[in-house]
Amino acid sequence: MRAATISDGSVVVADHPDPEPAKNEILVRVRAAGLNGADIMQRAGRYPAPAGDPQDIPGLEMAGEVVALGPGAQRFSEGDRVMAVVGGGGQAELCVVHERGAMPVPDALDWPAAGGFPEVFTTAHDALVTQAGLRSGERLLVHGGAGGVGTAAIQIGRALGAQVTATVRREEVRAEVEKLGATVIDPEGFEEHGPFDVILELVGAPNLGADARALAMQGRIAVIGIAAGAKAEINLAVLLGKRGTLRASMLRARPLEEKAIAQRLVERQVLPLVEAGAIRVPVAATFPLDEVAEAYERFTSGGKLGKIVVLPT
Amino acid sequence: MRAATISDGSVVVADHPDPEPAKNEILVRVRAAGLNGADIMQRAGRYPAPAGDPQDIPGLEMAGEVVALGPGAQRFSEGDRVMAVVGGGGQAELCVVHERGAMPVPDALDWPAAGGFPEVFTTAHDALVTQAGLRSGERLLVHGGAGGVGTAAIQIGRALGAQVTATVRREEVRAEVEKLGATVIDPEGFEEHGPFDVILELVGAPNLGADARALAMQGRIAVIGIAAGAKAEINLAVLLGKRGTLRASMLRARPLEEKAIAQRLVERQVLPLVEAGAIRVPVAATFPLDEVAEAYERFTSGGKLGKIVVLPT
Repeated sequence: MRAATISDGSVVVADHPDPEPAKNEILVRVRAAGLNGADIMQRAGRYPAPAGDPQDIPGLEMAGEVVALGPGAQRFSEGDRVMAVVGGGGQAELCVVHERGAMPVPDALDWPAAGGFPEVFTTAHDALVTQAGLRSGERLLVHGGAGGVGTAAIQIGRALGAQVTATVRREEVRAEVEKLGATVIDPEGFEEHGPFDVILELVGAPNLGADARALAMQGRIAVIGIAAGAKAEINLAVLLGKRGTLRASMLRARPLEEKAIAQRLVERQVLPLVEAGAIRVPVAATFPLDEVAEAYERFTSGGKLGKIVVLPT
Repeated sequence: MRAATISDGSVVVADHPDPEPAKNEILVRVRAAGLNGADIMQRAGRYPAPAGDPQDIPGLEMAGEVVALGPGAQRFSEGDRVMAVVGGGGQAELCVVHERGAMPVPDALDWPAAGGFPEVFTTAHDALVTQAGLRSGERLLVHGGAGGVGTAAIQIGRALGAQVTATVRREEVRAEVEKLGATVIDPEGFEEHGPFDVILELVGAPNLGADARALAMQGRIAVIGIAAGAKAEINLAVLLGKRGTLRASMLRARPLEEKAIAQRLVERQVLPLVEAGAIRVPVAATFPLDEVAEAYERFTSGGKLGKIVVLPT
């Protein structure tokens, strides 16, 4: 098979042996695979794939048709449309995944949307609901509301009945983010728009001190991104006064059973909202596999709202 | 009634009107009232009592006999031995408390032990079990193991089946802390003794960076004290890699319903251990009310292990 391949700090297309589905795994012909920040870090050699996952083929998510079942696999049949978060290897013509790690693709999603759905919606749902315990009526602040996880978090938060505020730096995409259901504010001085019961921190250390000050009583900060820096200062007296919680989490390094639990929760709580049209997956651009290098460039150049998706087959 | 009274940075004994039990409150003749760090801060004017609690009478905990019932109070009868966490006013001959905020005193506790039990054991149980979710078999680190909350946390952790390690700075009390069931280590370089599933942080900001590094995967840091400083530095990349949680909490500022829930949990999970002799309340010294100033001096001078308790009547 052909696959996107990390080579010396750039991404090229190369031939690889076809993967074979082991016990309880399914082999997927990949129709669409979204790009994520982790791919860019991996391209730069800063984010190796977990042991046991393809080391040189990037791609944390994919959608496609089941083309073969490993021994014992029974959740899906050949031809089924599936999508999944994977530890790596998604940006390829073929990909294997444990059947417990895969989800059915709702009819409402076409291939590009399905390929861009699993990573950001699973990350956002896990952070908001499982980690931060977001409840109806609470005030949610999403940092980086124009990003992939941000747009997913806004829609999930809104569907759960939260009041959603989002910081967006780029002026030109604010109107689009507002259409997703958030009150959009400037990142500068965001704390004046609080207090917030839950803050989704996708940016990193520079925000943390103000996050604590913007927290409501018993508020929770879910840290899932540190692109802007890791070394944070926080005033524990402020956090004590709020009885606040700071929880850091990432999806990629989790063992199968925890990823599977996260997928079951998305199936139960998010996919019905997709089917009902209450949640959509903004896709900014698609690229054939041969243009995967251009896809990466487009991802890093920012620009429009939505996912960048590679279409391997 | 006579009561310890904060006056211009010192604590004296003064006369006050007798408190009267309002609806669902009980009036307690206080036999013993433990001292806590918050009293010392309040004496210095740095920790005002919550609104609705006595502002100038210190004392966050007390034990004594019920001498009168307010309208509707029915959990206790006159003469019952009770103990409670209160928002203030414990170091007095009489104290009122909502009946849902009080607990029965087990036969195993004499008055000094009962007077020194509620604050530290409720704080420790809440932090370890309710906030940090400590489970059997987990590795617990207690910072400040020789303090009141520290000795309570060690015993609760051990009774729950955790492996307990405690930092103790003073050489002379280490043997006593070990007898409570902890492996005692020096605060310097504590992180080399990890990883720990739960870290109880009673010291404050200077430890926080090393706490994060000493955390096990999915570990939890419960911050309940910041005596050594509030401004902390933490590396979010370390916390993300561990998928760690930092939770700050304090008991005093909570509304009645939350304090009452904490007391119900102590009644159910800790008092049976007290009755069985598995948990004891170390008392270092007792002072009559007239010597309350000396009691405060003794508290701040450190020295032996255990609670300093005032005996108002």
